[in-house]
Amino acid sequence: MKKGMMDKTLDFEQGAYIIIMYSFRNDYSEGAAPAVMQALFDTNLNQTVGYGGDDYCQQAADKLRQVCHAPDAQVHFTVGGTQTNVLIIHSLLRSFEAVISAASGHIANHETGGVEAKGHKVCTIETPDGKLTPTLVEAVLAGHSSEHMVAPKMVYISNSTELGTIYTKEELQGLRACCDAHGLYLFADGARVASAIAASDVTLVDMAELCHVFTFGGTKNGLLFGEAVVFAPDVDATHFRYFMKQHGALLAKGRLLGVQFLALLEDDLWLKLATHANAQSARMREGLDALHCEYFVDSPTNQSFVMLENKVIEALKDRGYEFEIEGLEGETVTCIRIVTSWATPQEAVQQFLADLGTLL
Amino acid sequence: MKKGMMDKTLDFEQGAYIIIMYSFRNDYSEGAAPAVMQALFDTNLNQTVGYGGDDYCQQAADKLRQVCHAPDAQVHFTVGGTQTNVLIIHSLLRSFEAVISAASGHIANHETGGVEAKGHKVCTIETPDGKLTPTLVEAVLAGHSSEHMVAPKMVYISNSTELGTIYTKEELQGLRACCDAHGLYLFADGARVASAIAASDVTLVDMAELCHVFTFGGTKNGLLFGEAVVFAPDVDATHFRYFMKQHGALLAKGRLLGVQFLALLEDDLWLKLATHANAQSARMREGLDALHCEYFVDSPTNQSFVMLENKVIEALKDRGYEFEIEGLEGETVTCIRIVTSWATPQEAVQQFLADLGTLL
Amino acid sequence: MKKGMMDKTLDFEQGAYIIIMYSFRNDYSEGAAPAVMQALFDTNLNQTVGYGGDDYCQQAADKLRQVCHAPDAQVHFTVGGTQTNVLIIHSLLRSFEAVISAASGHIANHETGGVEAKGHKVCTIETPDGKLTPTLVEAVLAGHSSEHMVAPKMVYISNSTELGTIYTKEELQGLRACCDAHGLYLFADGARVASAIAASDVTLVDMAELCHVFTFGGTKNGLLFGEAVVFAPDVDATHFRYFMKQHGALLAKGRLLGVQFLALLEDDLWLKLATHANAQSARMREGLDALHCEYFVDSPTNQSFVMLENKVIEALKDRGYEFEIEGLEGETVTCIRIVTSWATPQEAVQQFLADLGTLL
Amino acid sequence: MKKGMMDKTLDFEQGAYIIIMYSFRNDYSEGAAPAVMQALFDTNLNQTVGYGGDDYCQQAADKLRQVCHAPDAQVHFTVGGTQTNVLIIHSLLRSFEAVISAASGHIANHETGGVEAKGHKVCTIETPDGKLTPTLVEAVLAGHSSEHMVAPKMVYISNSTELGTIYTKEELQGLRACCDAHGLYLFADGARVASAIAASDVTLVDMAELCHVFTFGGTKNGLLFGEAVVFAPDVDATHFRYFMKQHGALLAKGRLLGVQFLALLEDDLWLKLATHANAQSARMREGLDALHCEYFVDSPTNQSFVMLENKVIEALKDRGYEFEIEGLEGETVTCIRIVTSWATPQEAVQQFLADLGTLL
Repeated sequence: MKKGMMDKTLDFEQGAYIIIMYSFRNDYSEGAAPAVMQALFDTNLNQTVGYGGDDYCQQAADKLRQVCHAPDAQVHFTVGGTQTNVLIIHSLLRSFEAVISAASGHIANHETGGVEAKGHKVCTIETPDGKLTPTLVEAVLAGHSSEHMVAPKMVYISNSTELGTIYTKEELQGLRACCDAHGLYLFADGARVASAIAASDVTLVDMAELCHVFTFGGTKNGLLFGEAVVFAPDVDATHFRYFMKQHGALLAKGRLLGVQFLALLEDDLWLKLATHANAQSARMREGLDALHCEYFVDSPTNQSFVMLENKVIEALKDRGYEFEIEGLEGETVTCIRIVTSWATPQEAVQQFLADLGTLL
Repeated sequence: MKKGMMDKTLDFEQGAYIIIMYSFRNDYSEGAAPAVMQALFDTNLNQTVGYGGDDYCQQAADKLRQVCHAPDAQVHFTVGGTQTNVLIIHSLLRSFEAVISAASGHIANHETGGVEAKGHKVCTIETPDGKLTPTLVEAVLAGHSSEHMVAPKMVYISNSTELGTIYTKEELQGLRACCDAHGLYLFADGARVASAIAASDVTLVDMAELCHVFTFGGTKNGLLFGEAVVFAPDVDATHFRYFMKQHGALLAKGRLLGVQFLALLEDDLWLKLATHANAQSARMREGLDALHCEYFVDSPTNQSFVMLENKVIEALKDRGYEFEIEGLEGETVTCIRIVTSWATPQEAVQQFLADLGTLL
Repeated sequence: MKKGMMDKTLDFEQGAYIIIMYSFRNDYSEGAAPAVMQALFDTNLNQTVGYGGDDYCQQAADKLRQVCHAPDAQVHFTVGGTQTNVLIIHSLLRSFEAVISAASGHIANHETGGVEAKGHKVCTIETPDGKLTPTLVEAVLAGHSSEHMVAPKMVYISNSTELGTIYTKEELQGLRACCDAHGLYLFADGARVASAIAASDVTLVDMAELCHVFTFGGTKNGLLFGEAVVFAPDVDATHFRYFMKQHGALLAKGRLLGVQFLALLEDDLWLKLATHANAQSARMREGLDALHCEYFVDSPTNQSFVMLENKVIEALKDRGYEFEIEGLEGETVTCIRIVTSWATPQEAVQQFLADLGTLL
Repeated sequence: MKKGMMDKTLDFEQGAYIIIMYSFRNDYSEGAAPAVMQALFDTNLNQTVGYGGDDYCQQAADKLRQVCHAPDAQVHFTVGGTQTNVLIIHSLLRSFEAVISAASGHIANHETGGVEAKGHKVCTIETPDGKLTPTLVEAVLAGHSSEHMVAPKMVYISNSTELGTIYTKEELQGLRACCDAHGLYLFADGARVASAIAASDVTLVDMAELCHVFTFGGTKNGLLFGEAVVFAPDVDATHFRYFMKQHGALLAKGRLLGVQFLALLEDDLWLKLATHANAQSARMREGLDALHCEYFVDSPTNQSFVMLENKVIEALKDRGYEFEIEGLEGETVTCIRIVTSWATPQEAVQQFLADLGTLL
């Protein structure tokens, strides 16, 4: 990125800044979307009070409530996803209460036991596509009947899931009904909720209406960092700032979160960025289909889980491509995850497909 | 801050961007120092791996080790101070082990029980100036003799302290000798260590040599956010990243920390910024002395604790000045804290003193 | 104790089983009062369900509710004091909420940070006699004003205190009013509440009426082990058994607690035992007064804190007497704690006083 | 049990005290074995120091070391199983370290998240018979590769397991070799280890040699309560008493544990009691075989898992028999658990079988 580059509009389609060997490892490989960086610049020397008590945070919270059609929602801004998941769960559960999660759920697998470190058990269920259903939830409940076991009190889902799959509105309604029937909180981890919304019939309004609490992730959608937490009005989150501070999650220069989310919410930037990310993955999958590749799971969002021969994977690495290996390496075939983001140039996808084509 | 302003050098002394009614509330009221913002800008679209595994972090850690003359020090970068204090303490202590702190220590008073939330007791000692001494430490040890009590295992100091006071090199040497004699870790919270170093005979080399672990704070010295943790080579911090991740303290775009600290360490920027902050407070105290003001405690750093009549305090607030009230309000006189920072223009100090002069 | 001795009544005043050199170290130096042992014997082979779901526990809880005139009180039986304190506090507080205690409080000093290990800060206040007052409580509250500090939510007192002092009914009423005014729980640790009641105008009915929760200690009043927890009807303790089980505090053979407490509550045995213990201490203090001894603090219960010359203390030890040294050893004079119990024979007191008389 | 009954020997085979409708619900339905009660009786009024510092505990620890041929083993006595499991795990693991357990393991299922409440994740594996193997352990390890996941550090087994199955010496040797190869602790929960030993080629000497730590359970083998913890000499358990006290697991009258374990270890009483329990279950299974009953799992110890028609189960309950329902009720057939103990009279087994015979 060149000095002064902030003065022009970032043109996704022209891709003037293409890097030949692209990393498809993640959707947080770059910094922030240009408009977000610009907003940080423009407000840099304005003095504000600390810890999120500033006007930017207030305005961003108001804007998010407005976008969600949830004027009484309780909004907080945090720095990162693991921190946020742990805080939400810990603030709502007592120590004997547990959270139900897919076995592939981020809190179950990729947070180094953060929930357990706060004292709560994660009850996991195997599920082929990373999604929970009322039936799966009720199977867990059936096994917990007395004070000799934990008491499940929350259902944790991610949307999109760790496998790139998404919930339909009807599925979310079903889960919420199940939660209501059993006195459970429904918590949706929205680290990639923008990508899910861009790919489904679910809206932010639905998320706010159907979840007791959800996160609106910024880190993977164009912010330097930042997650917004949205509690429904009837959830007791009065003391969430105490939990945040105790955990070291009240950012001193909290304004940075307000400023960034304001920029992200302006003119639906968040949706535009997610739509771009999804579109690049759709292009990628079109190309993979044409190459007769197979998938571990079908995903309509910005993650693709492709089965490739190990020697092909090695060859791609040799050419400089980066991506995650999913699960354990197979004997001859292994699953790789390809992720696109708000920043992925179309040319990077085309180049990858072209190179892959020569290897198959 | 105007668009394009990054193209020129921020001129502290000219103060072209003076805000008439200045906030002396804290040293994190603004964003980042210009060079830091510029570095974030310049690296924004470079792709890197996440979670601090990138080259920027590596280079920044190397640079910090070099500045500390500590080639084998273990360096980690974190987002905020409370998070960092909690992590350091939790990673080194077992649950029955306690940390000794001045009663005014940040971990004892202003972290919402973050250390306790991780399971550890903070043993506090009253001290007039916020500083610990071997005598005070040993008084705590004397009261802990069996498994019916916690076992003190760490001494926590802050330098500069929450009262703006600082340790001399000799005092640090004495504390370290005391810790060695009793098998205790010496941990220095350096949220404001740059200011302390700029005002004392202590250097970063001394900090690295005399502390088992210390932090080198960026948030209060010109970064958007960021603390560097420096463990001495002989401290077992092998698994610190596990603790970080579990706590949600591994920043996804960890590069942001590396980039910022690289900028801060370049050409001793950190020391220049701290020197500027201290100089503004020195000017402030010269003016306060001339107005015959009295102090709650003498501080040579960027914080001043001034006793003012309540009606004067109210009048200052009415004029738009901001500052912290320290402790409880007195009947007629109350202590206020005035903080200057890398961003404080000299004119803001002069204006404040002029306005105060008319009120006394 | 001889085989078959259970067949006769234990005669406190005859003291047929006097041990010449008596231990005044504590009130849990022996096993159980004879009637309690007998009850354990008599029920030993009756089969019951585990974990306190048995009839003995049910009957004991009913009996305790009856004695307390609190038909809706929630009663649980636990094994030991530290476990119980920790459980009560943890079950009622969220992690950012703190408990206020005298600096000499058992939870602050002699439980190895058990409360902190569950995540809660103990806010301590210095107090000369181990007792809290509304003024002291409000001083703590005044220092806690925002989410940057813990939120005090409970007042912990012990009655009798760790210094053997007791609360009057009026004092308890004052504390409860203070708690009500500030939304705090009042929790009384009654490890020695029988001794307090035997020495004051406070009754079990008062304890149940004035405390949100209190414990009725058995370990120090004639049981092998056992504490009863009494929650007021309006306190949400619905899930206390979950907390107990999670902590490993649901005794498999919970019946042992029911059987013992039934025996202790039968015919006011608890009060008779405590009255005996207090009477022996009163005799002790009469004798000490006659010997012109001085006290660290005046106590009307079964603990006496006596200042003795170090050489006298050594001589007593040489003769085989046992007692606790309180605090740090003085240069020439040190405080020792002399404790009597339900099992202390009058002759042991007389012998001690006689021996001490020869040493002064 | 009649008054004075302690004067005669309890005669298992004569069964003078038969209760017609017996509870096979658990092996802790009665109090203590007569010799244990007698020992408590005989030592009741001897004064000792508290918290396990007494001679009885010292002698019992020595005796256990002797029986284990482990003169340098570190022995501690605790009250209950859940408490003990949690303490052992918490004392050896750091918060990011996890324990591997069969999905049916007691710590995974029946301790209300006690391990998680101390901050540690339990990594579970499905296993048909409740037993772990090196292959299963290594499958868990393979899935944990970085600081984004917990680090497995301990293998938890129970012997006998929650399904009544047992490990052979060779299997234990294999698990220990696996643990050594991967730097894991091997911890065996011996709540029912006496029953396992009475039914297998494994001895206490083997347990002490092959496990880094194991428990020798008393509660389910004739004590009122009590578990002995045996750490191998090379495990750092120096501060275990701190962990115990912090958790509220240091019994004030710790002597009760020493006295009971001394009685249990005397003349191999522990093995005699376990052999009696196993023999009753063997008789039970002989009878069930003759009635052509089927089992959920084959168990050679004091637990039997029998599949019965729901109507038969109801009829048995109607006659007053007690037992546990295992798992969820089936449509027509459900698994019940039948447990015998040191106290189970042969006549109770015969009566049950006779009654069952009339119902099939």
